[in-house]
Order: sequence, then structure tokens, then C-alpha cells
Amino acid sequence: MAKINSNYLLLPNSYLFAEIAKKIKAYQKANPKADIIKMGIGDVTHPLTNSIVTAMEKAAKEMAESSTFRGYGPEQGYDFLVNAVINGEYKSRNIDIAPDEIFISDGSKCDIANIQEIFDINSTVAITDPVYPVYLDSNIMAGRSGRLNDKGYFEKIIYMSSTKENNFKPSFPAKHADLIYICSPNNPTGAALTKAELKSWVEYALENKSIILYDSAYSAYIQEEDVCGSIYEIPDAKKVAVEFKSFSKTAGFTGIRCAFTVVPKELYAFDDMGNKVALNKLWNRRQTTKFNGVSYITQRAAEAVYSEQGMKETKEVIKYYMNNAAIILCGLKQAGFEAYGGVNAPYIWWKIPDGIKSFDFLDILLEKYQIVGTPGSGFGPCGEGYFRLTAFNSQEKTKEAMQKIYKAASN
Amino acid sequence: MAKINSNYLLLPNSYLFAEIAKKIKAYQKANPKADIIKMGIGDVTHPLTNSIVTAMEKAAKEMAESSTFRGYGPEQGYDFLVNAVINGEYKSRNIDIAPDEIFISDGSKCDIANIQEIFDINSTVAITDPVYPVYLDSNIMAGRSGRLNDKGYFEKIIYMSSTKENNFKPSFPAKHADLIYICSPNNPTGAALTKAELKSWVEYALENKSIILYDSAYSAYIQEEDVCGSIYEIPDAKKVAVEFKSFSKTAGFTGIRCAFTVVPKELYAFDDMGNKVALNKLWNRRQTTKFNGVSYITQRAAEAVYSEQGMKETKEVIKYYMNNAAIILCGLKQAGFEAYGGVNAPYIWWKIPDGIKSFDFLDILLEKYQIVGTPGSGFGPCGEGYFRLTAFNSQEKTKEAMQKIYKAASN
Repeated sequence: MAKINSNYLLLPNSYLFAEIAKKIKAYQKANPKADIIKMGIGDVTHPLTNSIVTAMEKAAKEMAESSTFRGYGPEQGYDFLVNAVINGEYKSRNIDIAPDEIFISDGSKCDIANIQEIFDINSTVAITDPVYPVYLDSNIMAGRSGRLNDKGYFEKIIYMSSTKENNFKPSFPAKHADLIYICSPNNPTGAALTKAELKSWVEYALENKSIILYDSAYSAYIQEEDVCGSIYEIPDAKKVAVEFKSFSKTAGFTGIRCAFTVVPKELYAFDDMGNKVALNKLWNRRQTTKFNGVSYITQRAAEAVYSEQGMKETKEVIKYYMNNAAIILCGLKQAGFEAYGGVNAPYIWWKIPDGIKSFDFLDILLEKYQIVGTPGSGFGPCGEGYFRLTAFNSQEKTKEAMQKIYKAASN
Repeated sequence: MAKINSNYLLLPNSYLFAEIAKKIKAYQKANPKADIIKMGIGDVTHPLTNSIVTAMEKAAKEMAESSTFRGYGPEQGYDFLVNAVINGEYKSRNIDIAPDEIFISDGSKCDIANIQEIFDINSTVAITDPVYPVYLDSNIMAGRSGRLNDKGYFEKIIYMSSTKENNFKPSFPAKHADLIYICSPNNPTGAALTKAELKSWVEYALENKSIILYDSAYSAYIQEEDVCGSIYEIPDAKKVAVEFKSFSKTAGFTGIRCAFTVVPKELYAFDDMGNKVALNKLWNRRQTTKFNGVSYITQRAAEAVYSEQGMKETKEVIKYYMNNAAIILCGLKQAGFEAYGGVNAPYIWWKIPDGIKSFDFLDILLEKYQIVGTPGSGFGPCGEGYFRLTAFNSQEKTKEAMQKIYKAASN
């Protein structure tokens, strides 16, 4: 009798964003004329830039000719893209990363969900609260979570509270964690660790033999000088951290899928006998066995992001989104609300009026103002009382949303 | 102290195809002028057809305009492609599959490696010997294999021998298996189950409450009438089987990545309490949590495969490859060898001269004749004494290889 992986039964009922999408779809169906302003899911709206599309058209043409057709590529990504990443992301920051430390993939969501596979099933896991749900859910599925208690916490997971009181920058885990997930600039709070803060995390991990799984998907949005674009700007970070970066938010690749993960060769964990094992080797084995590389066309598109013209275009788009972030932050404050984030991240963490549950607030915003955001409690118990807005809409729609909110608050 | 998943240490040293690729690279480096004929890895060589490339160029252009840009798509794939798959693969075979039973992905390798996650960690697993290594390796990584014994078998895996004596069509597992991996038309042997044989497998699975994981990646190569293009042509197969299909070999998508997996809603496994749980729901949860959909551009390309013109073009390419298969099969036989497969599959399973190990034969072919194939023993102990050649080269190169082999055998 075939049995299921019963850890799946421990999962909260539905994946957050899928649930919200369903709600919007139902509302849209019932109100076909409603012009919904979507500030919920973290999806980009600006079309791909000229450099990127031109690169894709060229690559598509190459696939039509015998002499330039490409079948299976390296599971780890083509050299042309690996080298572009090294130059564009690391050499430019004076960081030395070798080509075989880079693993090109079809998305950070996939990598960050899959990375736990290479660690022991009994590893202890620390996550922030609130948190991007994939870190938690992938560990629930693997059997590392224990059960959900009535306060909304899984008994074996170590939660690091991210609250107004600590400026949404949590303290170190209350007990030893083998794996620590950190996302900076943060989804959902928009908070970004300063260089000094990140350094203290690296030192903590070194001292405690923890591994930091560093989600850096939003690094292109960093505006402040003292915030690192890569964890490897910190000395010795290569001994403790895996870094995840994505083209999704950097260059609008959510629909064409490309990301990369850095697993430094100096990064080790231990086997049952206490021997050091290089994580780079394990991740390479995982990827070559369970993954078959990213579309050649997408990889050429990603390469174009790092061309001179591509970088210029990408910066313009990010400037546009960050202008929206400023409009939201300013708009909410003018309407009398507390709001955070939005300075080094496209996310604004809105403190909603006391006494309203964040999932109820979703309904209120949708039904009264046709604005969609993401309820904070969907990211964890400490997210209750907050609401995430994203800067990915058009300036016009973003302004319209802020005007609606201002008007409602003034009445 | 962070510990690794020690199951990884049970894995054979390197992934087969990566190892062979390394060997070829080294030979090519040492002999830069050598014109190597690659008949090893199962990769296509014919460029993408006109319908497919045109669809990609159009999709790339859409991504350049605000009004047609697409960000995140549904994790399960766009409706346009799901419907094209239903019409092209299932309605055309009088099979009724619902849209939410189809999961579009970036490759069958990924799906077939990941599917084991939704099953209990103590599930018993049956695989054929020889076998496509991913079925085995993904279960080793998960901890279902036990240790490798000195005969080359993992102690907890149930092996089904696939030999000349049973026409490379193995008997049912010697003891109960929760999960049975079947690949037909088969990689590496090229054997294809007849409808009657496949029916007996479905009946066996129904009776024994086993789940069949049916790898149907090569179904487009089927030439004989009594071989099924889908396992769901067999009554009640939806109660026992997950089917994996790919655009890789069907339409040359190895470089642009698209496949799909069918998880029927009538397919169940059991939880710890003995309750039925729909696998469709679990796989959907797996995919929405750990995957983020396939490139929009690739999905439009896959849709084009099912257009009238696309089907016509694809059939031509397959005809070309199957002509190569016939050349190889005939060539080997003329040279005095035994050879199998090649009738419903692009793979020829070559019985090599007694006393030569298949990995040594790789070196002989490469060094003496600059021909690359895949050593049978890489697919399992029963593969020893065999060598896999593929039909994916040009007709010219295929003929050249056969002439070299004929000449060598005649001396």
C-alpha cells in the first residue's frame, strides 16, 4: 500500500499567494467592471527592456539553425552567463567567486526550497517571523517542523521575531540553529541589514557553526551606502553562507525564469562521523541529478542584463519602482499611518489600524477600494497587524491607490 | 553544527552523463582535430522547427510591451498550453484528462526526480535494471535505498532485471513495491511494452496497491500499432499511474525546457491512519511551493508543437531520427553484432563482444573510432555487456559511424 509523505498534512491549508489569487479572481468575476489595483503579490509589471528582448530574439533565431542550435546545456548554466554574473555581481563588489561556485537556476524560489535537501533531516532551522513562506513550508514538507501549535508556531522551528521594537531586525536565535534563513532586503518587511549588522550575523554563524541561507533576491533595490549587495562583502562569509540571487525582481524575469545560487567551496557541513563535507559538491550533485538547466534563450536574456546598456535600462526600471515605493511610504504616512520598509526594498510594511485582523483588512481594501495587498499574518504570527504593499504597479495606479487611502483616512 | 544529508554519501561517485562528458572533453582537448561522432547522451541535434521559433519570437516581442507583458504565470502552466496538451496528447487518444490534472514543468527529469517527495520515506521502490539513473539516485538521496552491495545493488531497492532472455521486458517485482518506475519506450534498452503487457502492469498495480510512475518521454517515437502512446489508454490506469511526458525528445526542447506530468484526481495513496489522500493535491502543493512555472516564451513554443503545422514538422524530425535508428540497428547487425531497440525508440541497445567491460568499450570506441556511446553498466548491473547508441546525430554522421564499425568488425 503506497503511503504519502505525511509531513504534507502538517502544512497550512494553502499556499498564501495562491489563496489570495483565488480571492481576487472570485471578486473580479463577481465585479467584472472593477479596476483592481494590485499591490499584493511581488510581481513586476514593467515589460522586459530592449536589450533583454533583443537578446532573446537573437537566441531564438540561433535555435532555428543547425549550426547554432543548442540542446542540453550544463546543469549549472552556460559559461557566458556564469562569467557575466561573476563580473556584474561580484568582481564589481571586489568579491572573488569562482565559476564553479555559481549555479544558474530557473528561480530563487526553487533553489531556496530545494537547498534544505542537502542537509540532515534533523537539522534545526531558524526563520524570522514574519517570513517568506517557502523557507518554512519546504522544511515542513521535509519533516523538520514538528506540529503547529495554537499560537501559529511549529514546535521544532526556531522563530526570530521581527517587530517594530527591533526595527524588524531580529536578534540571534534563542537556541542553536543549524540553518538560519535570512532575507535582506527583507520580504515582507522591507527592512535591510546594515553592513555592521550583517557582519554580526556572519560572526555569530562562524562561532556557532551555523549555515546562513542568505536570500538576496532584492539586492538591486538597495539605495543606502551601508547596506551590502552581497553577504560576501563580509570577511569570512564564504565559510558560513549560501547566497541566493534572482533576475526576477532585478530585471523583470518573473515570467521567463532565471536566478542563481552561490555555494562557496570553503563552505562545509559535517557527516555522521564528524568529517567535513563541501556543500558545493552536494549542491552540484543535487542539481545535476534533479535539474536540467535553464532555457538557453533565458540565459542569453540574463547575460544581456549585465551589458552596459542592459544595466542602464535595468537601473531605470528599478528607479521607477523605488519612486513608487517612496509614493506609498509617503502616502501612508500622510494618511496618518505607520509604515516601514520601502527604502532599500520594493516592499512597504504597513501597520494597519489596531483591532483589525490583516486577513480582514485584505477584504476591506479589496471590496471598498479595489486595492489588493498581502495580509501580514500570512507571513507568520508577528505579521498580524501589518499589511504588505509592493511598488510594482504603475506610478499612476500607485498614486491612485494612495489617493483612495488618503481620502478614506480623512473621512 | 550543521550536518549534511548523509544519504548523498551513498551515491555512486558521479552522475553518469556528467562523467562521460568529462571524458569526451578531455579527449577533445588532447586531440583538438578529432571529429568525434556523439551517439552517447540522448540529446537532440535537429534545430527547432519554424513554427516553434516563430512562436518564441512572437512571445519575446509580447514581453517587450506593457500591454502584453507577463510576469509570474500559474505554477501549473498557462491554460493555453494545458489545453493544447489535452487536445494533442489525450483527446486525440480518446482519453479524458482534466486541466487540473496536468502540471507543466521545466523537464521530466525534474518531475521524475521530485515525485518521490510526496511519498512516505519508507516506501519500497522497484526499478528496472538497467534503468535511467535519476529514478534510483533521487531515491538514494531521499534515504530509501539502503547501502550499495558488492554486486552493484542497493539493498532496499527492488530490481527488475531487463535482459535478452525476457526481451528487455522485466517480470513483476519479486516482492511488494509501493512505487514502480516504468519507462516505455525504454531508456536505455529501446524496448516498448505492448498494450497487453502494459495492461498487465496496470492490473498488477491495482491488485497490489502499487503506484506506477510511468515515464513516457519517448512516446512520440512509437511506430508500432500495439504500443500505447499513453498509459491512460489502459482502463483504470488513472487509479494507479502518474504519467511523465516531455517536449525534449518530441520536439527538440532539451535546450529550452518543457515537459508535463499528469496526476489523475482518482489516484490516491494513504496517510498514517489509512485514509486516502489524493496525490493530485499533494503534487499541486509541491509544485506551488517549490516551483514557479515555466518561461512564458517556452510555453508558447510548446503550444506551437500542437498546431497543425507544428505537428507536421515534428513528425518529419522524428522520422529523420527513426531513420537513423534503422541505420544503426541494421548497421550493427550487418557488422555481425546483436542489437535491440530502435523500433519504437531512438535508442539502440548494442550487445558488445563478450569479455569487454562496457566502460572499457567507451574508451575503445572513443580512442580508436572517435565514436561516443553510453556504457550499459552505467544504467545498472544488467547493463554490463551492452552499449547504448542514440539516433540523434545527423544521417551523415550516423552512416559514417556505422561504416567505421563495419570496417573494424570486418578486419
